[in-house]
Amino acid sequence: MGATKAKRMPREVREQQMMDAAVQTFGRRGYRAASMDDIAELAGVSKPLVYLYLNSKEELFTACIRREAAALLDAVRGAVEPGLPADRQLWAGLAAFFTHTAEHPDGWSVLHRQARTTGEPFAAEVVALRGEVVAFVTGLIGAAARETLAATDRAPDLAERDVAGLAQALVGAAESLAGWANETPGMTAKETAATLMNFAWAGLGNLMDGRGWSPG
Amino acid sequence: MGATKAKRMPREVREQQMMDAAVQTFGRRGYRAASMDDIAELAGVSKPLVYLYLNSKEELFTACIRREAAALLDAVRGAVEPGLPADRQLWAGLAAFFTHTAEHPDGWSVLHRQARTTGEPFAAEVVALRGEVVAFVTGLIGAAARETLAATDRAPDLAERDVAGLAQALVGAAESLAGWANETPGMTAKETAATLMNFAWAGLGNLMDGRGWSPG
Repeated sequence: MGATKAKRMPREVREQQMMDAAVQTFGRRGYRAASMDDIAELAGVSKPLVYLYLNSKEELFTACIRREAAALLDAVRGAVEPGLPADRQLWAGLAAFFTHTAEHPDGWSVLHRQARTTGEPFAAEVVALRGEVVAFVTGLIGAAARETLAATDRAPDLAERDVAGLAQALVGAAESLAGWANETPGMTAKETAATLMNFAWAGLGNLMDGRGWSPG
Repeated sequence: MGATKAKRMPREVREQQMMDAAVQTFGRRGYRAASMDDIAELAGVSKPLVYLYLNSKEELFTACIRREAAALLDAVRGAVEPGLPADRQLWAGLAAFFTHTAEHPDGWSVLHRQARTTGEPFAAEVVALRGEVVAFVTGLIGAAARETLAATDRAPDLAERDVAGLAQALVGAAESLAGWANETPGMTAKETAATLMNFAWAGLGNLMDGRGWSPG
């Protein structure tokens, strides 16, 4: 590892290459089956260099989870403009979510499959991410309720617990669809987002207007 | 282990006690943290007897997953009467699902949390269960579409892939809500089922009637 070679590639670039290689390897093989040798080889660096940047396989996996979680949250939050009507906000958020999971299938696999099925401490990282997503969606549903109130002078009959339950349902549906879409050839992110938007909004929209389902 | 004692309690009863103890222990502590000692003690039998019935901790965990999966599927399938209108079928299925997961929180934890986060071969068992649930829900949505066709002489504009996506969304929403409901004090199974029914059916119902959401 000559000093000239190290100079040609800044630390951040090399670190990003290692992380990209790690996400791909962990995402496709899982934590236990992935080896640091594979990751170093895919990144085109020596194994000691990988250990130099990140002390252990466990730290590397944790760093991957955090990077992918932050990227996903940024993508969704960045797409949602608070000034838009609630349904447009939800649509923008769903489109950004499924675009991101489609473009980063290995990252999504790290978050949704590998981190959750590898036990602690990794599963707890994903629980934290999920909590942030649920809080964000809860905020969107709350905004929709306030919008309905402003437009109709009538508050939707939704208790705080109803809103929390709807957010859980929406997030669970999105997680399920993201994995399915990535395994379904030809399914675009927009189509996936439209499926969930139709499922969720026509339902949520009716709820906001006080038209819930009731036994006939 | 006297023969008289063995006679007093038939094999099936003792086996069920061991399985109950195993589901409770695995569900609350996870596969790795659970010990065969704990399970034997909770079941009130000796550890060798547990091994006599089920050869290893792995076999015991697999048996727990299969028993709990079969019980959940039976509960849902048994509740849904094919002759009912589609929304009543869905309501009956959701009510049965959330009643079962509320009454068997340890079993649901084994299926949804522990088996999925313990790696293979256990995760594959749950993938198989999930496939059966998705197929069942796909059938329900297909029945709803046929019902709409019969009632209105107009088929809902739903491709096979749309139906598959809706089924994935509904199953993901139900999984998410079941875990949340079990952690939310005072949330009844009927309330949880009503939350998802409102979310899903008012949405699905609109879709069946050709009234999907569209950007305004």
